[in-house]
Amino acid sequence: MKVEESLIKDIGEQGLLKIVQRFCPQDIIGDDGAVIPSPDAGKSLVVTTDVLVDGVHFSDRTTTPYDVGWRSVAANLSDLAAMGASPLGITVGLSLRSDLPVSWVEKLYQGMTQCLDRYNTPIVGGDICRSPIITISITAFGQVFPHYTIRRSTAKVGDVIMVTGFHGASRAGLELLLNPALGKSLNEAERLFLIQAHQRPKPRLDILPLLKSKFNIPIWHPLEHSDMASAGPFPISGMDSSDGLADAIAQICRASKVGAIIERSQIPLPPSLNQLVSPQEVWDWVLYGGEDFELVLCLPNELAQFLVQELGEGAAVIGYITDGEEVLLRDSSGVFGDEILTITRGFQHF
Amino acid sequence: MKVEESLIKDIGEQGLLKIVQRFCPQDIIGDDGAVIPSPDAGKSLVVTTDVLVDGVHFSDRTTTPYDVGWRSVAANLSDLAAMGASPLGITVGLSLRSDLPVSWVEKLYQGMTQCLDRYNTPIVGGDICRSPIITISITAFGQVFPHYTIRRSTAKVGDVIMVTGFHGASRAGLELLLNPALGKSLNEAERLFLIQAHQRPKPRLDILPLLKSKFNIPIWHPLEHSDMASAGPFPISGMDSSDGLADAIAQICRASKVGAIIERSQIPLPPSLNQLVSPQEVWDWVLYGGEDFELVLCLPNELAQFLVQELGEGAAVIGYITDGEEVLLRDSSGVFGDEILTITRGFQHF
Repeated sequence: MKVEESLIKDIGEQGLLKIVQRFCPQDIIGDDGAVIPSPDAGKSLVVTTDVLVDGVHFSDRTTTPYDVGWRSVAANLSDLAAMGASPLGITVGLSLRSDLPVSWVEKLYQGMTQCLDRYNTPIVGGDICRSPIITISITAFGQVFPHYTIRRSTAKVGDVIMVTGFHGASRAGLELLLNPALGKSLNEAERLFLIQAHQRPKPRLDILPLLKSKFNIPIWHPLEHSDMASAGPFPISGMDSSDGLADAIAQICRASKVGAIIERSQIPLPPSLNQLVSPQEVWDWVLYGGEDFELVLCLPNELAQFLVQELGEGAAVIGYITDGEEVLLRDSSGVFGDEILTITRGFQHF
Repeated sequence: MKVEESLIKDIGEQGLLKIVQRFCPQDIIGDDGAVIPSPDAGKSLVVTTDVLVDGVHFSDRTTTPYDVGWRSVAANLSDLAAMGASPLGITVGLSLRSDLPVSWVEKLYQGMTQCLDRYNTPIVGGDICRSPIITISITAFGQVFPHYTIRRSTAKVGDVIMVTGFHGASRAGLELLLNPALGKSLNEAERLFLIQAHQRPKPRLDILPLLKSKFNIPIWHPLEHSDMASAGPFPISGMDSSDGLADAIAQICRASKVGAIIERSQIPLPPSLNQLVSPQEVWDWVLYGGEDFELVLCLPNELAQFLVQELGEGAAVIGYITDGEEVLLRDSSGVFGDEILTITRGFQHF
């Protein structure tokens, strides 16, 4: 036993608050609520919440507290990216066991702030309380021009479907952490790529400057939206793939009341995945693995080609929207046969 | 066993989502995040988060799911009131056991929305996941003119200290629920008053229209703040008393680097409290009971008298700010002797 390891119950609530407040802007915390700047003129507020529970969403076996912090922030920022919104700040609601080392909490906040710092986003408030189960509840706020909001419900016939990056890598990384022997055929770079995909996913906020340049979205916009409206409807719909690629496509199609055809051969496979497991399992991870935090976007082909080129490796057009009712995964090679993708096959919480 | 009682695990995540989404505005939910209107021009965004854990903050013995919902919302709206902010919306992060009856969740949301409806505030989003421990994490957003924000750190010598209502009533209500025999000397109205104080606390958002009228705070304000600045600094500081009256006074004094003298005889006692327990215990509940969700405000005496008169029963000036370092509870009657109030005696989570 390390003698210097102090526990939460040793330092009490006030001691713990002092530690976590170091990770927040000093001029914002310390009141009943945080006062933060409003969205820019003409923009709307975007709000998203995620709850992560120890043993359900993360585990000490595969995730350090630093990575739990990083991932929990990345999941929320990914939801903002999926709305086309840029982040303003987050709040953190923590339930902690009193026998946790204080260093666990410090590492959690280090992971959260390291991820947040990449996007200049502060922790503006939160709450901490005692519980037998560690639970992390994050609410993220962002801003978006109403006209340029990315929604699930506006996909339409004629759109192609694109992904911003690889799917299945996060699940592969998790399996490597649970069963290191699985990775014996991989070199160090290949192994690290998959593990990082699981431990340090990157929210695809990098699409925002691309969209901004393509649509001439102004930084500040006059209150009247006339020239936005004259530009016609915003042609991009979509969501993030936190619950899996198949789930995202099926959710978008359900919300938009359309169907889709996905070409299996067009879906980019993470490098080295085929060396790990059988093709059947590879596809299970790619379609249903989840937590890759990529975006699935429906949009005109020309715009998709622009984004694919700018985003680079892993980004690809994988199919198109139809006026049908099903999401069909087509296999031109004939190896797997055609398959219908549904929402219920993905991760279900209950 | 009631045969019609369906459980969360029977209806699954999608079924559960359908039920809770009934309690949300239909045009706002269903995307990765909620898009909600920004604060009015010139106002800042105020954000506050609370986490409630089963067995720590609430219990089936004393609180129905309806009341858990009501209280969790009231606690967050109280934090907004304590900032001088009016509510815009809340998000709800829920961790639930899969063996909970579906009706438990419905009653929880009924309680939340009944409280929210009093203040025209919607549930704009959330997340639900499985956990062995029920945990409710609420984030509330509000808006306030920066100039008219109520802070903890600006109390000053010359201010009086006022409370917006009774303290100790919530704790008395809890004790009555735990031990009904305790209330045998009370009539039904007295008993109900105390129990309601515990189960259905009211956030003191009713001070906002009073402040608005007194300070001519405009509904909409031009972007330049010139005439606000010319009005001089906003003379009100304070916080809510969720962790107890003594804690609130001590927190304000610490943040403002001032002391205070409180007159014990000026603190209003909830009716019938003296019939329940010994004077010593009465004072313990009043000072340290917590969860009354009143406001403790520091302000010029004239303004305090105006608010006390408007707010009615339970509101009172109870002391004043000093240039000392201590919060002294003075007892002119000599029965209890003087006492120093500190932060650490109140409710500590760890």
